[in-house]
Amino acid sequence: MSNQITHYGNKISVFAQRTNIALHEVNAQYTHCEVDFENKPEWLFKANPATAQIPAITYGGPVVPFDQPSPESAKITESIVILEFLADLFPSSDLLPADPVERAQVRFFISTLDTKFWPVMLAWMRGAPPNDMVDGAKALQALLSQEGKGPYAVGDKFTIADAAFAPMWARFRLITERDIGVEAFGKEQHISSAIRLLGVPELAKFRAYANRLLERPSVKATWYPEDCNEYLTRKAARFIKK
Amino acid sequence: MSNQITHYGNKISVFAQRTNIALHEVNAQYTHCEVDFENKPEWLFKANPATAQIPAITYGGPVVPFDQPSPESAKITESIVILEFLADLFPSSDLLPADPVERAQVRFFISTLDTKFWPVMLAWMRGAPPNDMVDGAKALQALLSQEGKGPYAVGDKFTIADAAFAPMWARFRLITERDIGVEAFGKEQHISSAIRLLGVPELAKFRAYANRLLERPSVKATWYPEDCNEYLTRKAARFIKK
Repeated sequence: MSNQITHYGNKISVFAQRTNIALHEVNAQYTHCEVDFENKPEWLFKANPATAQIPAITYGGPVVPFDQPSPESAKITESIVILEFLADLFPSSDLLPADPVERAQVRFFISTLDTKFWPVMLAWMRGAPPNDMVDGAKALQALLSQEGKGPYAVGDKFTIADAAFAPMWARFRLITERDIGVEAFGKEQHISSAIRLLGVPELAKFRAYANRLLERPSVKATWYPEDCNEYLTRKAARFIKK
Repeated sequence: MSNQITHYGNKISVFAQRTNIALHEVNAQYTHCEVDFENKPEWLFKANPATAQIPAITYGGPVVPFDQPSPESAKITESIVILEFLADLFPSSDLLPADPVERAQVRFFISTLDTKFWPVMLAWMRGAPPNDMVDGAKALQALLSQEGKGPYAVGDKFTIADAAFAPMWARFRLITERDIGVEAFGKEQHISSAIRLLGVPELAKFRAYANRLLERPSVKATWYPEDCNEYLTRKAARFIKK
C-alpha cells in the first residue's frame, strides 16, 4: 500500500478550489486530475462511487493511472470531508488548530458559510437580488477573530475555514469586477447593488478579511480567473430573456 | 478558568439527543439544562449568541447558574460541531477513530445522513409519502462497515456517526409503532407504506444496524419516548384537515 493521493478536481469548481488550496497548504505530493464535470467520464464512478462528483480524492492503494482508480484505494469525497481529512493527514500543517475550542470555531465558521452565505450567493449568481448576502456576510463577520487575534477566520493561522471561504470571495470579486451576468440580470440590479450592499462601512472588517485571503499563495495558485470568467459568463447567458 | 460543561438541550429534540448521547459516551461531568425551545427564555441568547438554538454547550469560564451564561465561556453550537468538539475533548473515548481514512468515513456517513436521509424523513413526518426514504436508507447502507468489520457505521467502535443517526431511527420506530400521524396522513399512506418500504429484504443490513443502535446504553439513557410521543402527536395534529 502506498500513500498516494490523486485529486479529482476542476479549475472552475468552487469546491474543488477548496481542496486544491488545502493540498497546496499541506505541501502534499499528489497527482491532479482535471475532470470535465459537464461531461463526466465513466471512470469517475470508480473514483467517487457514492456520487461521482468532484472534488474527490483517492488515497493509498497501488499507484495507478488516474482514469483507472483502484478498488484498493480509499475514496474521500465532499469538500469539507476532504479538508478535514487533509488536516488529519498533515497535523503539522495547522489547517486545524490543536485546541478543541478553536477547532469548533473553525467548524462553526464553515457551517455558517455553507448555510448562511453560499446559498444566497448562489441564488444571486442565478439572478436573485443581492440583499440577502448582507446577512450572510454579517453572520461571518461576527465570527471573525477579535482585534489583535487575526488575521484569519480563527486566529493567526490559515485554516480550513479560510480554505472553504476564499473560493467564494474570489468569484464574488470576479463577477463584480467584470460585470458577469449584466446582460441577463442588469448592471444596477446585479452588480452595482451588490457592490454597494457589501461595500458598507459596517462590513469593512469582513471585506478586509475576505480580500486578505485572495493574497494567500495557495489561493492564488489555485485560482483561474479566465476559466471562471468563461464558465460563469456562459452560465449567466442561459438566463438572458430571448 | 474551569473546564465546566453546561449542555442546553431538550428531551424531544433529535439534535439535542445526538449531543446528549455523546456526553454519555465520553462519560463527561456536565450540567444539563432543559430548554423549552417552543418558548425560548431570553437568556438562551447568552448561551448561543449566534442562533439561540439547542443543542448548545458552554465550556470553561467561571461556574455560573445555567440561566446566567458567562461571557467568558466558549459557546459551542450546531450538533455536529458539538459532536466533533466532544470527540476532540475526550480523545480516548473513541467517538472518532484515530485513522484519517476512518475519520473521513465517519464524516461522510454524517454528511449522507444529513443530506439524503433526514430531509426526506422530515418531509415524511410532515405528510409526504415515505418513498424517498428508501433511497436515503440505501445510501446509508452502502456506507456501512463490511461484513465482519461492524457492528457500527464505521468499524467496531460507536462513533459520532452512530450518535448522529440513532435519534432519527428511534423516532422512526416510535412513529410507526404508535401510529403517530395517522389521523392527519392516513394509516396506509403514512405508516403501513413506510413499514413496508423500509422493511424490504434489500435493507436488512441497514435495519439490523439501525435497531442495534437503539440497544446502546447511551441511546437508551437519552431517549424519552413518552415526551416524543406527545410532541410528535401534537405536531402531526396541526395537519388534520378541518
